[in-house]
Amino acid sequence: MASRSTKSPLQSIIMDRAARKSLQTQVFDQVRGAILSGQLSPGTRLPATRILASDLHVSRNTILGAFERLHAEGYIEGLAGSGTRVSNILPEELLLARNRSRVPSGDAVPAGKLSRLSQISTLNNPQNRHRPGPARAFRPGLPDLSQFPFQLWGQLVAKSWRNPPTDTLLAGEMEGYFPLRQSISDYLGAVRGLHCAPEQVLITSGAQQALDLIARVIIDPGDKVWLEDPGYHGLRSTLQAAGAKIYDIRVDEEGICVKRGRKQAPDSVLAAITPSHQYPLGTTMSLTRRLELLDWAKTSNAWILEDDYDSEFRYAGKPHLALQGLDQSQRVIYVGTFSKVLFPALRLGYMVVPAPLLTSFTAVRASIDDYPALALQPALHRFIDDGHFASHIRKLRKLYSKRQQTMINALQQHAAGCLIASPTQAGMHLVVRLNRACGFDDKQISDRAAKAGLIAPALSRFYKGKHSSQGLVLGYAGLSEQEVNLGVKHLAQLL
Amino acid sequence: MASRSTKSPLQSIIMDRAARKSLQTQVFDQVRGAILSGQLSPGTRLPATRILASDLHVSRNTILGAFERLHAEGYIEGLAGSGTRVSNILPEELLLARNRSRVPSGDAVPAGKLSRLSQISTLNNPQNRHRPGPARAFRPGLPDLSQFPFQLWGQLVAKSWRNPPTDTLLAGEMEGYFPLRQSISDYLGAVRGLHCAPEQVLITSGAQQALDLIARVIIDPGDKVWLEDPGYHGLRSTLQAAGAKIYDIRVDEEGICVKRGRKQAPDSVLAAITPSHQYPLGTTMSLTRRLELLDWAKTSNAWILEDDYDSEFRYAGKPHLALQGLDQSQRVIYVGTFSKVLFPALRLGYMVVPAPLLTSFTAVRASIDDYPALALQPALHRFIDDGHFASHIRKLRKLYSKRQQTMINALQQHAAGCLIASPTQAGMHLVVRLNRACGFDDKQISDRAAKAGLIAPALSRFYKGKHSSQGLVLGYAGLSEQEVNLGVKHLAQLL
Repeated sequence: MASRSTKSPLQSIIMDRAARKSLQTQVFDQVRGAILSGQLSPGTRLPATRILASDLHVSRNTILGAFERLHAEGYIEGLAGSGTRVSNILPEELLLARNRSRVPSGDAVPAGKLSRLSQISTLNNPQNRHRPGPARAFRPGLPDLSQFPFQLWGQLVAKSWRNPPTDTLLAGEMEGYFPLRQSISDYLGAVRGLHCAPEQVLITSGAQQALDLIARVIIDPGDKVWLEDPGYHGLRSTLQAAGAKIYDIRVDEEGICVKRGRKQAPDSVLAAITPSHQYPLGTTMSLTRRLELLDWAKTSNAWILEDDYDSEFRYAGKPHLALQGLDQSQRVIYVGTFSKVLFPALRLGYMVVPAPLLTSFTAVRASIDDYPALALQPALHRFIDDGHFASHIRKLRKLYSKRQQTMINALQQHAAGCLIASPTQAGMHLVVRLNRACGFDDKQISDRAAKAGLIAPALSRFYKGKHSSQGLVLGYAGLSEQEVNLGVKHLAQLL
Repeated sequence: MASRSTKSPLQSIIMDRAARKSLQTQVFDQVRGAILSGQLSPGTRLPATRILASDLHVSRNTILGAFERLHAEGYIEGLAGSGTRVSNILPEELLLARNRSRVPSGDAVPAGKLSRLSQISTLNNPQNRHRPGPARAFRPGLPDLSQFPFQLWGQLVAKSWRNPPTDTLLAGEMEGYFPLRQSISDYLGAVRGLHCAPEQVLITSGAQQALDLIARVIIDPGDKVWLEDPGYHGLRSTLQAAGAKIYDIRVDEEGICVKRGRKQAPDSVLAAITPSHQYPLGTTMSLTRRLELLDWAKTSNAWILEDDYDSEFRYAGKPHLALQGLDQSQRVIYVGTFSKVLFPALRLGYMVVPAPLLTSFTAVRASIDDYPALALQPALHRFIDDGHFASHIRKLRKLYSKRQQTMINALQQHAAGCLIASPTQAGMHLVVRLNRACGFDDKQISDRAAKAGLIAPALSRFYKGKHSSQGLVLGYAGLSEQEVNLGVKHLAQLL
């Protein structure tokens, strides 16, 4: 009988009635697997559907459905009359010998096979990047989430999805949701002194995407770039991925030394700087230096990337306006983010692009990521225009200023003589200097802190050149005063 | 008197009480402007704050505040006693001669100055890309938004923001929100026949970001790549931006001709294909061809990019499983998107990456875009796991299948003999062939349609090689049956 002669190769079929997969799919998968693994060779006759159904205790329709699919995909031939056989058209040498495990392991592909990846993929090591993580003492750059008005935010988000702009859902706005671009342009004009029309504002997925976009629009392999030394590591790999040749230009108390830059690489195409609040030093670029830099960019046709990453938090009441507002030659590309004021996973940042570059930026953006998600843009627009953004900043400013003072006091109390902190007028972290007399190296302390569960990046690690300073970069914004106190006490015990 | 001798240069200050800017900022801006424009030269004495306040009818504190800021930023010197003067430290040659307009025009920078942009920025022309736009007959690939349950969606989104996962808001999950990755992996395993663990699923900002990521992880300048001919233009510029050398491999009714590819560029590192529903032809890759391609990838250490862009809509009940499920050598990188089922501005896509490549992908992603926004991921996870996704697909499938039939009927009624449509088993568009006897060229018809407000891309424009077919690519999914009928009638009148 047909059933007997062909039953054996399909005996291994097992029906799992608790599985998510339908019974039909289970039959299909297992017969296909048997064919591909060579268990069922080409030409082999399959059991009659009626018999298989009864063997497996499933309905005949289940088997018929599975066989129809196997037939449609070319695994089996002849559904009626003469019986069903494993297809002969399968090139035998292509049939695969082994079954694979459901969850492939990382070791399954020999290392040599992975060699065919790009150079870029070897540049980036996520471990090296200064990424946000859980709020722990003293991770820099994290906001205090307990202060965020989630109730209100949830209402704004829900409202924006109740009647979403249908056209925008289908078409998307390449540069971002226009009303939000308008809110940002108003805010930047009034508070940061930028000169910009809403049309120049592009919404990005956080500042990092803006940095990547700039790298791609500006940099060709071999192009020279000035970075601040010390500076932000996250930017380095992005620029390197675009093929930039990086020159680390020393930063002094006035900001990046333009004269050194002019000497080391006068023909750079880009200078990336943090003029409002140098990262990590916390200093503000002087007016003279700003004008010098603008003059260099103008005369050498170079671009300036102004990263205004945490300018919202200035405590001493004298906000230094953005460099962009001083630029009369359209050489400054300004980058800002909502990660620091609201929360990092919002992934909404923005850039202000000189008008003549707008077309290039939107064109490159199209091939990277089409356009920004509508998701929370309308809600954020309302959040800003209804004044919640400004009042949230005011609240945080007061809070963070107090926390900075708490940290300075705690350092004086517990680590006086070894860790020297002076107040800064802005930001979310302190740079604490090391007293050399104490005989410690900052990397040593930082590593010791890491072992004790504290995050205290060594200042010298932010430097690339020979001249580095010793110190620790300690975030305070996201920590309660108690956490600041306990953390500092803990840190002092390690010295 | 001091007021008289120094009043004149500041006479031009105008207070605008209706402006968004504070009065203090207005004073600051205008004095700074006068200094930078040279109206107030270094050393010039400024009027006493008391007198200026009275002249401008503002409080003295307003003037004091503005002067303090000017002082802090280095524009003026000496706030007390001997009087306030314009700073002498400003290097005179850096002072800028003209005022700039508030909205810079695109022409303001001479064309030559823009030459310092990357090669990549000249590759992409957003006009050339097959981007979504408003729903009009017959833009391909657009879903019917009227069917989307926005009420329910709004509730899910609101709920997810009522109690957001605080840790995730601060730290972000590099690969995406884990519960969503799990939902996707379950869905792909059950419905598309993929073999994947949730850990292999990466959330991206739409399929386009996945394509860009793949290009960056895999391609080095000069690397060879197979693209389907005809094929999707959006992928071309992305691969070119990474420096790929593109080989357009002919597609026949079985899919991409692997033998041709082996002949033209056997050492390619990547083959990008649409096996489930070839774009734009709509054919399904045969099993033989699939196995051939997998064999080529395995033996030549190449990668396969499987773009499964609209596989959800199969009407004839025999879904061809994804190529990834056949791959036993971990060479397939699978890309999918929610744009087609839900809506494009959601900007959520996903990729399934062979386990050994995960580290490379997350590392490169970090320097492009950190990690995906939390925004709507938790809501989408619930949408899928609560069954709304599956039922939405079922609803759309019925609707779209009917619309396809409507389009075929309308074509037979209005354009019989000239436009020949045959039903396809899947997708959101039809490829309508041209009867050569009618004497039309498809580009001609497409251009004529465009002038009449209809979107009817010419099939021959999707081809790069010599052998092209004549036809029109007509989307029907996003149009009501009435719109389909009217659109076809309108199109027929143009012939």
